[in-house]
Amino acid sequence: MNGAESLMRALAGAGVEYCFTNPGTTEIHLVAALEQTPGIRGVLGLFEGVCSGAADGYARMAGKPAATLLHLGPGLSNALANFHNARRAHSPVVNLVGDHPAFHRLNDPPLHSDIATMAAPVSVWVRDASGSSGLGADGYAALWAASKPPGGIATLIVPADRAWSESAMPGSPPELPDPSPVSPETVGEVSRMLTAGKPTALLLGGRALHGPGLELAGRIAARTGAILISHTFEARFERGAGLPLVRRLPYFPEAARKRLEGYAQVIPVGTTVPTSFFAYPGSPVQVLPDGCAIKVLAGPDEDIVGALDSLANSLDACGIDYHAVPLNRPAPPAGPLTAETAGAALGALLPENAVISDESGTSGAFSYRFTAGAPPHDWLCLTGGSIGQGIPVATGAALACPGRKVVCLQGDGGAMYTIQGLWTQARENLDVTTVIFSNRSYGILRVELERLGFDSPGTEIADTMDLSRPDIDWVKLASALGVPAVRAQSAEGFYDDLAAAFAEPGPRLIEAVL
Amino acid sequence: MNGAESLMRALAGAGVEYCFTNPGTTEIHLVAALEQTPGIRGVLGLFEGVCSGAADGYARMAGKPAATLLHLGPGLSNALANFHNARRAHSPVVNLVGDHPAFHRLNDPPLHSDIATMAAPVSVWVRDASGSSGLGADGYAALWAASKPPGGIATLIVPADRAWSESAMPGSPPELPDPSPVSPETVGEVSRMLTAGKPTALLLGGRALHGPGLELAGRIAARTGAILISHTFEARFERGAGLPLVRRLPYFPEAARKRLEGYAQVIPVGTTVPTSFFAYPGSPVQVLPDGCAIKVLAGPDEDIVGALDSLANSLDACGIDYHAVPLNRPAPPAGPLTAETAGAALGALLPENAVISDESGTSGAFSYRFTAGAPPHDWLCLTGGSIGQGIPVATGAALACPGRKVVCLQGDGGAMYTIQGLWTQARENLDVTTVIFSNRSYGILRVELERLGFDSPGTEIADTMDLSRPDIDWVKLASALGVPAVRAQSAEGFYDDLAAAFAEPGPRLIEAVL
Repeated sequence: MNGAESLMRALAGAGVEYCFTNPGTTEIHLVAALEQTPGIRGVLGLFEGVCSGAADGYARMAGKPAATLLHLGPGLSNALANFHNARRAHSPVVNLVGDHPAFHRLNDPPLHSDIATMAAPVSVWVRDASGSSGLGADGYAALWAASKPPGGIATLIVPADRAWSESAMPGSPPELPDPSPVSPETVGEVSRMLTAGKPTALLLGGRALHGPGLELAGRIAARTGAILISHTFEARFERGAGLPLVRRLPYFPEAARKRLEGYAQVIPVGTTVPTSFFAYPGSPVQVLPDGCAIKVLAGPDEDIVGALDSLANSLDACGIDYHAVPLNRPAPPAGPLTAETAGAALGALLPENAVISDESGTSGAFSYRFTAGAPPHDWLCLTGGSIGQGIPVATGAALACPGRKVVCLQGDGGAMYTIQGLWTQARENLDVTTVIFSNRSYGILRVELERLGFDSPGTEIADTMDLSRPDIDWVKLASALGVPAVRAQSAEGFYDDLAAAFAEPGPRLIEAVL
Repeated sequence: MNGAESLMRALAGAGVEYCFTNPGTTEIHLVAALEQTPGIRGVLGLFEGVCSGAADGYARMAGKPAATLLHLGPGLSNALANFHNARRAHSPVVNLVGDHPAFHRLNDPPLHSDIATMAAPVSVWVRDASGSSGLGADGYAALWAASKPPGGIATLIVPADRAWSESAMPGSPPELPDPSPVSPETVGEVSRMLTAGKPTALLLGGRALHGPGLELAGRIAARTGAILISHTFEARFERGAGLPLVRRLPYFPEAARKRLEGYAQVIPVGTTVPTSFFAYPGSPVQVLPDGCAIKVLAGPDEDIVGALDSLANSLDACGIDYHAVPLNRPAPPAGPLTAETAGAALGALLPENAVISDESGTSGAFSYRFTAGAPPHDWLCLTGGSIGQGIPVATGAALACPGRKVVCLQGDGGAMYTIQGLWTQARENLDVTTVIFSNRSYGILRVELERLGFDSPGTEIADTMDLSRPDIDWVKLASALGVPAVRAQSAEGFYDDLAAAFAEPGPRLIEAVL
């Protein structure tokens, strides 16, 4: 068995199901091994940002890593922006990067570059397998490192000669690491804070935002009167009718400060303290109230659900019902198509168990609001602020969740970054409905410009936020890549198009002209 | 004056004409300054790989740097793959990367990452302007570093507060550094080697491949009987009727070895010794003959043209005519459209002074061959092997060379990487004719697969090289982005489409179905 086969057998044996790839010559043996190995399947992306984003989306929904397989430094470069988002999402990814054999790197051939340095800023673990005697063992080590709570990107650089040379069979998959337990003292202290009669916010992140963690947080809130809040952008919110309400902090720091006014205590659970997304001249970046007490119940790498369980027990909250969001859908909208009426249509129609990949920018606020009372669903955010995540994350989520409708809410500016992902959705016949909010501008930049005091922007400033010269034809673009598409120009039309897309499986795109 | 204004005035005053950008909130003050500064103009790319590739194409043809302006680590990430090619082309680029103020980085907001580490592998110079008192001076330093022979990417990280704070006026632009002179001893030794009666190859790179350097090399060859050769991929070949013939080394190492067989001496001029592009099992990566003497006349950072001039003088070759390639165009082709007939059409029609941006992969060999006797033109190669260069480099070259027709020969696989560049060509109304060689596969990978002994590839191996499921509709894709497009399916049709595209200015795309 060669190294490539050893590696792919190890990954498949440990439960890695997908390898998102755009390979080249240095990865040919790895691709051959991928084909020969049952249980793991290659998914082709026409650009590596699709691969890294898909691995992120898969990990957020499957709760376990996929692999990526990239072509030397340039392939990795193209994957980095969505790896930045994946890093912020704490998504586990086994990132394989093919490389020249060590003896050939010395010749500095054209494709040679410093892969390890480039991978470091996004990775929790980097290994160059140049000196490796067994790629299978390296694969296990990468899987372990990626899975170590809170999860991260483990980069294994695979020189081509390690893949084509003889290698040992991989041993047994490693036992994956558990999160660190939270001490009874910490639980006790938080418990005392929650019963001290002070206005308190539980700031939830990671596993506190879905599944048993969210339910426990809801019971604790119901028992103590604390509110549940979160950062603006999180990897995965489980929300909708029947679930506890978590209030996302607003994006702009003034609004976030206002939301937190009056809270004497903030308890981060699985996350860190909030800060402003950007800094602005003459304005503070702090969003927590002055003098607010902060006590972390569990950090991102700790046993979040276990800590919430202990806390609920200590508060005698386990038997208590949480305040569940009532089922509440907006009426089908009518009139002009706007961010608001588009959001209402989505709220009216969203299927139960849908997964939303949200990179809607300025156009999406209403969509979030109008789906608050929709049947339960998952909502995946732009965790790292690096645009071009929406379509790839939707692609990976669809592979992780067969049978669930995936909805991608995508601003036009970000859509152009990784539009290649539509082709993969067509190729894999994924059940994704993509809505392009076509406002022909980087809308958020126009808002920021005003905030920065540029009241009457000159022509060129307006120019760099203007996507209307030329207008992009999203219907043609999607259909060129194999995804059937329609253009909606009224609220009623958008509602009908959305209903049609939700009525049958497979990829669809709707250009919502705002 | 704020820092942003100081920076833009410095760059414009030093002759930087273009700033290829996709800015965000941290770059708003820089964009405002860009608008207010005469002499420098922002060009919007819908993805940063377009910006870095355009800066590369501009530098190759203008011989001086453009600026790029990118949005923090993610914006830089997206630019890295084409910066890899620019690094291999020794293209000077002033790379501005906006960032959070230093005080806000400490809060680790979502978009924060280690920009300096990420920039290092592609940059000759990296400065974080956090402690800077004057961004204008930083801009000069970046310009100096980028321009230092052989040229490279100088990355200046600009924290937003340095851009919005008061700053000194920039002083006078710096004197740009000259290349190091080559010693008379070296010239003398090479001169003796060239007159020793041994079969000798002058291996040309950089400025030895165009303008006065190429003419001098031609005279030296004519005087001494040496042949002129080059690496397979170079930043810029000047070629065609009336110019000296330079033989590019073949891509595959066996063929390159065969080409060099019998040469006792190789003299690199402005470049390094050749090596195989990739390594293969059981096959050497060396391409020079055993025992071949190597003597570098001038390294990439040395005075290449000066060294050739001294050498020509010492050989009394200055008055000698070089062997000029005769004008020789193929006949207009007929029959099925193939890589060969497409190449013949190009050779028959190529306008004088055209600039070719070549990322044609397996389909382009005939195009190169059939244009060998066309009127003089420039040919720009995929220097670093990172696909997705063709369309962006064409975009920058068109801005550098108004009045010259730019022709982009682009394989379909690479085209999907930076297809966003078509939109910039439409927006700027650039005179670029893009030919998509649509063979619906990563053709080079199929060739490599055979070379690696996978005689009957399994389904999945074939799959990752197959772009036909679904087929990409290039005509729709281009027209969605504002570039008029046609599909050619016969040699005659392609010839007519090419003639029509060459007959009038402005962006056009031809899908050549192979």
